[in-house]
Amino acid sequence: MKQSQLFMPTLREVPSDADIKSHQMLLRAGFIRQNAAGIYSFLPLGKKVLQKVEAIVREEMNNAGSQEMMMPALQLADLWEESGRWQSYGPELMRLKDRHDRDFALGATHEEVITSIIRDEIKSYKKLPLNVYQIQTKFRDEKRPRFGLLRGREFIMKDAYSFHHTQESLDHTYETMKSAYSAIFSRLGLNFRSVLADSGSIGGKDNHEFMVLSEIGEDWIAYSSESDFAANIEMAPVHDTYTMPEGEELSFEPVDTGDARTIAEVAAKLECSEDTIIKSLLFIADGVPVLVLVRGDHEVNEIKLKNVLGADDLALASEQETLKVMGTAPGTIGPVNISSEIRVIADHAVKYVKNGICGANEESTHLKNVNMGRDASVERYEDIRFIKEGDPSPDGKGIIQFAKGIEVGHVFKLGKVYSEPMKAEFLDENGKNQTMIMGCYGIGVSRTLAAVAEENNDEKGLIWPLALAPFDVHVIAVNSKNTEQAEAADALYSQLKEAGYDCLYDDRPERAGVKFADADLIGVPLRVMAGKKAGEGIVELKVRKTGESYELPISEVLQAVKKELQLLAGK
Amino acid sequence: MKQSQLFMPTLREVPSDADIKSHQMLLRAGFIRQNAAGIYSFLPLGKKVLQKVEAIVREEMNNAGSQEMMMPALQLADLWEESGRWQSYGPELMRLKDRHDRDFALGATHEEVITSIIRDEIKSYKKLPLNVYQIQTKFRDEKRPRFGLLRGREFIMKDAYSFHHTQESLDHTYETMKSAYSAIFSRLGLNFRSVLADSGSIGGKDNHEFMVLSEIGEDWIAYSSESDFAANIEMAPVHDTYTMPEGEELSFEPVDTGDARTIAEVAAKLECSEDTIIKSLLFIADGVPVLVLVRGDHEVNEIKLKNVLGADDLALASEQETLKVMGTAPGTIGPVNISSEIRVIADHAVKYVKNGICGANEESTHLKNVNMGRDASVERYEDIRFIKEGDPSPDGKGIIQFAKGIEVGHVFKLGKVYSEPMKAEFLDENGKNQTMIMGCYGIGVSRTLAAVAEENNDEKGLIWPLALAPFDVHVIAVNSKNTEQAEAADALYSQLKEAGYDCLYDDRPERAGVKFADADLIGVPLRVMAGKKAGEGIVELKVRKTGESYELPISEVLQAVKKELQLLAGK
Repeated sequence: MKQSQLFMPTLREVPSDADIKSHQMLLRAGFIRQNAAGIYSFLPLGKKVLQKVEAIVREEMNNAGSQEMMMPALQLADLWEESGRWQSYGPELMRLKDRHDRDFALGATHEEVITSIIRDEIKSYKKLPLNVYQIQTKFRDEKRPRFGLLRGREFIMKDAYSFHHTQESLDHTYETMKSAYSAIFSRLGLNFRSVLADSGSIGGKDNHEFMVLSEIGEDWIAYSSESDFAANIEMAPVHDTYTMPEGEELSFEPVDTGDARTIAEVAAKLECSEDTIIKSLLFIADGVPVLVLVRGDHEVNEIKLKNVLGADDLALASEQETLKVMGTAPGTIGPVNISSEIRVIADHAVKYVKNGICGANEESTHLKNVNMGRDASVERYEDIRFIKEGDPSPDGKGIIQFAKGIEVGHVFKLGKVYSEPMKAEFLDENGKNQTMIMGCYGIGVSRTLAAVAEENNDEKGLIWPLALAPFDVHVIAVNSKNTEQAEAADALYSQLKEAGYDCLYDDRPERAGVKFADADLIGVPLRVMAGKKAGEGIVELKVRKTGESYELPISEVLQAVKKELQLLAGK
Repeated sequence: MKQSQLFMPTLREVPSDADIKSHQMLLRAGFIRQNAAGIYSFLPLGKKVLQKVEAIVREEMNNAGSQEMMMPALQLADLWEESGRWQSYGPELMRLKDRHDRDFALGATHEEVITSIIRDEIKSYKKLPLNVYQIQTKFRDEKRPRFGLLRGREFIMKDAYSFHHTQESLDHTYETMKSAYSAIFSRLGLNFRSVLADSGSIGGKDNHEFMVLSEIGEDWIAYSSESDFAANIEMAPVHDTYTMPEGEELSFEPVDTGDARTIAEVAAKLECSEDTIIKSLLFIADGVPVLVLVRGDHEVNEIKLKNVLGADDLALASEQETLKVMGTAPGTIGPVNISSEIRVIADHAVKYVKNGICGANEESTHLKNVNMGRDASVERYEDIRFIKEGDPSPDGKGIIQFAKGIEVGHVFKLGKVYSEPMKAEFLDENGKNQTMIMGCYGIGVSRTLAAVAEENNDEKGLIWPLALAPFDVHVIAVNSKNTEQAEAADALYSQLKEAGYDCLYDDRPERAGVKFADADLIGVPLRVMAGKKAGEGIVELKVRKTGESYELPISEVLQAVKKELQLLAGK
């Protein structure tokens, strides 16, 4: 493609409303333009990259046995009434009426539509399992659209749905989809983790997010320094792998701690480390008080605690409630010598605190040399704390580190959440009616493009990985008005095109500085420049990613391009 | 793809709500399903065909120098206010509000969005012309969606827009687009015509529709038996190629015609042919009466007449108006001996009526042996009639025939209809501000798929042209429970896949009758059946289109498939 004809409006200035690199660069390099808040057009360069992302997604989904289809954006409200989401979805679901005053939703997701199609067409276990997907525009009216394509109101998603007659079949497809997602994000060159995620209100514990590690991520994840373990920090388990410190158990005794109440204050007052303190917190779980103990350097994870207690409702007790139950205020309570009617739940780590410190259930006093087995009774030791950086990885390999992540994919075992209310049923081997078991699997396609841009740039512009680059090679006539340079560039462009490379040719009558700046900005992996030595048959080749450049005879360009592209492709 | 795994729900019965073949067949063969009135899902087979249509459209558009981009479906109402269409578009434009109560349109078309993008980015004639396109979902809330994909409310369209600094540049791109469209519809195997179309209220005479000739078409077109001339019947010109009949001019005289008023009545009464009668009609053009003459067997084309008169408002005179102007009632009026103040406009054909018959401007009387030059004065002879079947084609080649057509494409010289109100301006060579000149070019992609299905089927099902077929070859194990048949079919499937053919393999444990019926229904071009002779190494090959079938040794299948597919591809 000749650049003089390409619609590629570049900007010198950083747009004032773009906060992150990918958004700035995609705007500046002319890949996208905003049409309204959170709503973008893909200009020709952006569309080319988008198609490359889509092609990779499509190929891996097809390989994994998913079948492509295409559902509409306009969805009858009736279906959303059936699933219950017409009421529960909130203002992010865009709604409209047609000319006959019927209610429609603009597809934010397609569980309802696909479930209605499948329940009408599939009646027997013989036709299951089934896995279908689409690459399609989705609409979500985000309250604060931001970060360009990362959080838009109209965006492109790959969404897949699977239907099963057994849980084992779902488990199998779930693993297949996870593998396909790993293949996709690996091909896109992203530093990602498959992260055990919070299942939210839907329930079901198998639910992974694919997160690209990135400073601008909106979620924190805990990952192993040595394995591929990764989890949402709310979800990461902490196993009981502590060891008991050596030494004798001493007798416990009260100590004066004045007005010290927080762990930090007590540790300072008693000149001890926080991990020798037992932190005691009173919670109310479904109306019942529960004394919860964690080590002083740990934090209670309420999601874990709620699950452990099987509670629907869980909250930290108020000062009044604490006074009523414990007879003393928060910050002074502890597990020693309390009524046997008070449930006590402790984190595993508490068991291993030797000669520890805890509240004495009276003002200005703590107990020291407390040892749990001996001095206090605990109903259960459980994993009820947040994982910390430096903890051992739950899979036993490496230690835990924290990072922020951009969610680019999500796989989810839906179970019967949609199939039950929408009556997606089949006859099993015994002719008995059963409800289908479902999974769903999403990739934010336009968001993934932005994530790649976010992770592949420098101060001069974008640096596309070869698999997604809008062009393979950028031929530049440094001075198009110079006949020798123009002729050399023309010839190179023809040769490279003929050899099957997708080539951009800067034939514009612009200054060299403008051309180089634009080339850096749009980030084509390889650049061939016909400059002052073109008359002598010498041109320059430059690798965008490394900045490495060298001169070579025109006759060797084809061979060099082949070699450099193979290197960039990692072959 | 193994058919046992393909989501392809076929129906034996013709769906009651499907009136036309393509709709019935696409439903029955499991290519599409309706989700709401005029809103469809493409199931895997439908999606495959759709992608093939899109790929052909994309390839030809790229070849023609158009650049692919992608604009959003959600469009700010503000833009439609600028063009004036927020008010004028009517209920077909679907509208909604976002959570901040801002008005949006769901894209029915993208003139406003693209014009807003281009006006912001292009400021100089040096960046023009520009031609961009997208393949994207459109929304139009049709009052009566019908005929399946032919008239839906959510559908896929390829829409291109071009921007120019001169009319010549637009003319050039317009012709390029017309050629690209011809290439596209030819590759799709459609019997189509590029038809000169009515420009409606927008004005500008260059405006062609691409029509597939079809009995279920909603528009009538006039086309040549021997050339590619075609036009909307309202628009087809009739040139002055008549010849004067031989014989002497006789003296005119009154004849009694009783209460005969219509042409048919007068012809019957006088036992003459209709083409010897001069039909006289009084029109009121912008308040001025005009006597309009056409030959008795011709009909006045009011669009042509209005253009010829340059009138804003044109209507047939009422009986009262006719009485007032002509002194006699409609059906009795004529051009002889009338006030010279009455304008007389005649169709070319009238000039060549020798010794004709016309109204005498009194009851129960006509004049015979009227000759125009001699007996009546005519201000202008013009082309003001509808073309008829049997007329010579306006390009001088062949004669005119009528047919109904399905509109699959439309190219349009927009001029400044959008760029002027939306202020899309550029600086010309002299640094002077100018308004851009625009063209737009649409193809109904999903409608085109339906048009292909409509023109390619028989009573058993669809017959896909190779270029669009969901698979190249359909391998069938006639009885999958028979080991020899299953093994032969398995081996053929592997071989054909390996040779690069896109293969569907019916491995289902179904009866032969079910398999053959399904195969006929979905219409894969070639079928290879491993049946009773599989054990002897013999299988049957069948061409869906011709019904031709023959037995051959398994070892020759690969060669035969290659040959038959080449034949089907017309190579």
